[in-house]
Amino acid sequence: MAEVEEARHQEDVQPRLREVQALLARHKVIESLVHRQQMPKHDLVEGLVHKQHLAELRGKLDALHSADIAYILEALPLDERLLVWDLVKAERDGEILLEVSDAVRESIIETMAPADLVAAAEELDADELADLAPDLPREVMQAVFLGLDTEGREQLRAAMSYRENTVGALMDFEMVTVRQDITLEVVLRYLRRFDELPNHTDQLFVIDREENLRGVLPLGVLLINDPETQVAAVMQTDTLALQPLDEADAAAQAFERYDLVSAPVVDGENRLVGRVTVNAVVDYIRQEAEADQLAQAGLKEEEDIFASVWDSVKNRWSWLAINLVTAFIASRVIGAFEGSIQKLVALAALMPIVAGIGGNSGNQTITMIVRALALGQIGEDSARRLFRKELGVSLINGLLWGGLIGLVAWWLYDDYRLGLVMTAAMTLNLLLAATVGVTVPMVMQKLGRDPAMGSSVMITAVTDSGGFFIFLGLATLLLL
Amino acid sequence: MAEVEEARHQEDVQPRLREVQALLARHKVIESLVHRQQMPKHDLVEGLVHKQHLAELRGKLDALHSADIAYILEALPLDERLLVWDLVKAERDGEILLEVSDAVRESIIETMAPADLVAAAEELDADELADLAPDLPREVMQAVFLGLDTEGREQLRAAMSYRENTVGALMDFEMVTVRQDITLEVVLRYLRRFDELPNHTDQLFVIDREENLRGVLPLGVLLINDPETQVAAVMQTDTLALQPLDEADAAAQAFERYDLVSAPVVDGENRLVGRVTVNAVVDYIRQEAEADQLAQAGLKEEEDIFASVWDSVKNRWSWLAINLVTAFIASRVIGAFEGSIQKLVALAALMPIVAGIGGNSGNQTITMIVRALALGQIGEDSARRLFRKELGVSLINGLLWGGLIGLVAWWLYDDYRLGLVMTAAMTLNLLLAATVGVTVPMVMQKLGRDPAMGSSVMITAVTDSGGFFIFLGLATLLLL
Repeated sequence: MAEVEEARHQEDVQPRLREVQALLARHKVIESLVHRQQMPKHDLVEGLVHKQHLAELRGKLDALHSADIAYILEALPLDERLLVWDLVKAERDGEILLEVSDAVRESIIETMAPADLVAAAEELDADELADLAPDLPREVMQAVFLGLDTEGREQLRAAMSYRENTVGALMDFEMVTVRQDITLEVVLRYLRRFDELPNHTDQLFVIDREENLRGVLPLGVLLINDPETQVAAVMQTDTLALQPLDEADAAAQAFERYDLVSAPVVDGENRLVGRVTVNAVVDYIRQEAEADQLAQAGLKEEEDIFASVWDSVKNRWSWLAINLVTAFIASRVIGAFEGSIQKLVALAALMPIVAGIGGNSGNQTITMIVRALALGQIGEDSARRLFRKELGVSLINGLLWGGLIGLVAWWLYDDYRLGLVMTAAMTLNLLLAATVGVTVPMVMQKLGRDPAMGSSVMITAVTDSGGFFIFLGLATLLLL
Repeated sequence: MAEVEEARHQEDVQPRLREVQALLARHKVIESLVHRQQMPKHDLVEGLVHKQHLAELRGKLDALHSADIAYILEALPLDERLLVWDLVKAERDGEILLEVSDAVRESIIETMAPADLVAAAEELDADELADLAPDLPREVMQAVFLGLDTEGREQLRAAMSYRENTVGALMDFEMVTVRQDITLEVVLRYLRRFDELPNHTDQLFVIDREENLRGVLPLGVLLINDPETQVAAVMQTDTLALQPLDEADAAAQAFERYDLVSAPVVDGENRLVGRVTVNAVVDYIRQEAEADQLAQAGLKEEEDIFASVWDSVKNRWSWLAINLVTAFIASRVIGAFEGSIQKLVALAALMPIVAGIGGNSGNQTITMIVRALALGQIGEDSARRLFRKELGVSLINGLLWGGLIGLVAWWLYDDYRLGLVMTAAMTLNLLLAATVGVTVPMVMQKLGRDPAMGSSVMITAVTDSGGFFIFLGLATLLLL
């Protein structure tokens, strides 16, 4: 579709952000003066200054790339964000909405009139529209759908039908196709009829009359060969062809391994239906890495840093609740040994060490295993090996660090038996951490679940409750 | 340099891995039979079968892409890894060494003769060699350096001089350059003299006699325009040009924002010195995300899953030691209140809840702030806003969850004052977590340190010791 002319690429957008912020600050001062009636509301001169500021701001924004405007919107509090949004040219709305994060997108869409949303959406390609669709009101999507031609409707329906995390969801429809029985000269003449080639066109797709994919013609190959050569003679037939239902993860790994810029997507009958480009893959990789990091920290999704307190509370709620339950269980384990603690109060001071080190060590194990599983590097045979290795590491760490902390406990409380219990409990808890750290992700994988999901919470729950139980249990048996 | 012909791209390498493993397993059975003397050592027939297996394996490997062989090497235990490595064609050694992880690379390089290493290194480009250099013995690098021509030596020296995490470290030297005063027809004829274009050539760099960068000519532009047009008339002058000392992070973000495939790198005088391509950026993004994940879990670096127990212990040692110190401090805080616990043993059971929820909540805050800082979205003005927001979230969570757990404590121990202390302590510890979670990464940033580094350990240390102190202190003041 019509691409808005883009401005100079900036390696660092932050100076632009500061400029916009400075203009906004000046604008706000005037606004507040008007508001406080310290300035006659209809003072023409001031009104002019005010308008000048906004015009200057609009000029700055027009000179920025859509992605940079998206960046600036994310860094602004809601009121300033909406002010800037209103100054942006309407025909860029769609592109910018695509670039901002989900949270910020919601905050903007909420304030837009349905007609403006329809206009913004109509600027987008089918695959982009499909990405935006979940955030758009139903009636807006209906209006947009009715405005599409048959091919557009079909593409939109296709793009929206694919689950997240499939190749279909990463796919776009901007392929340039050629036939194999023509010469490169004909291809060159054909390309000259384009106003521009789609972004990331590093190869043309060679198809036959039935739209079956026969091969690809990299631009590099097109350019270095004699124009009299036939496409069939130089096209490549050994490249990767994806299918819409393939896992996006596998496709992303293939892009990384083979350093691809684009790859064709074919259906079950080898008919070309779309392509995946490296920019979609890069976005996907970044998103996945972020989702992992957020989940590890107990955040449900990316947060607009200027979200309301209430939105933030909701985002963090679920993991805190789970954590509360596991902490409560650990607390009840301690509760069961209250008699022992009463008799030997040193136990209360020492028990968090056993639990804490166990959690740390378990997290190390589980992170490594989850990563190896994600890369598909663990088979039946290697699982046993890994298990033995992790137990070995835990044994060494338990005896060494447990021994050290046992000595400290002996010195502090002048009771060598307490030191021995400490060492034994640390070693046992580390062995427990290794066992759970290896088995839990493997079982999750076998059950077809994501092994990373909640792994850190689970291991900490086990090493906390387990650590308290082992330490207090051993102490009760041996010391009291 | 000479590229080995590559095999068909595989979306999923795991089936190939299983094939190799099956062949290795058969090979091992025969080996062990020979070894146990259950089979006459010189039995020609069996020897033949043995050789056939290895030949079959070699055939399979020859048909695989270097990146796929690297993947298989990573998934194999050391003995099988080295067996496979010996079967790989020597001229692919360099490329494969580039693809494997640091840990696996070390395990392979250790076993190679210096002469083989020199031969492998000589297959590589200067920028690739620079990546490999830190792992190669000094005498090998010297031999390779002496074997290079003047230009190669200069490039290698340049590539090795850049710090990690700069654009210089991501850069390669495979640019195709043209002059601005020629026609596209001349460019097309010039390109036809190439045997192949460098990977990821999506644009040609337009330079003048002094090698100053004047613009870029995207292949798409070259292809759609009339061959009689001059380069100067259609080249683009508004694209991103990087500098070797720029932060790799900023460059990676620019590639993501503008969906770039390649970007020129110029020195201070605007002379073209190299280019960065999207595959280097993808590798960089993946590496950074992984390093973050590993550091969060307390692992120093990526671990070869078949590393020896001892190597693993060393990799995990430093973080465990730090954790031990922080756990010990928390333990001493509890120790200071042993008298109170003796009087009211319920305190021992309840205190881990206060500490645990504080740690979880603090991790949520710090993760969000570190991410916003990395994107450069936090200015002076927004810092205060964020701080207020985080305190608000903590207050709500503290009163809600703290209130709930306070009720439970009241019900369990039949003491409403204990419940009140619990609620108050949780709220205060969450406020502490928010304060530290916002300030620590910001101070780190101001000091020029990486705000992500060790943030999770630090926040947990504060919320543990702080949680114990607040809860036990309040209880001592109000209940005893």
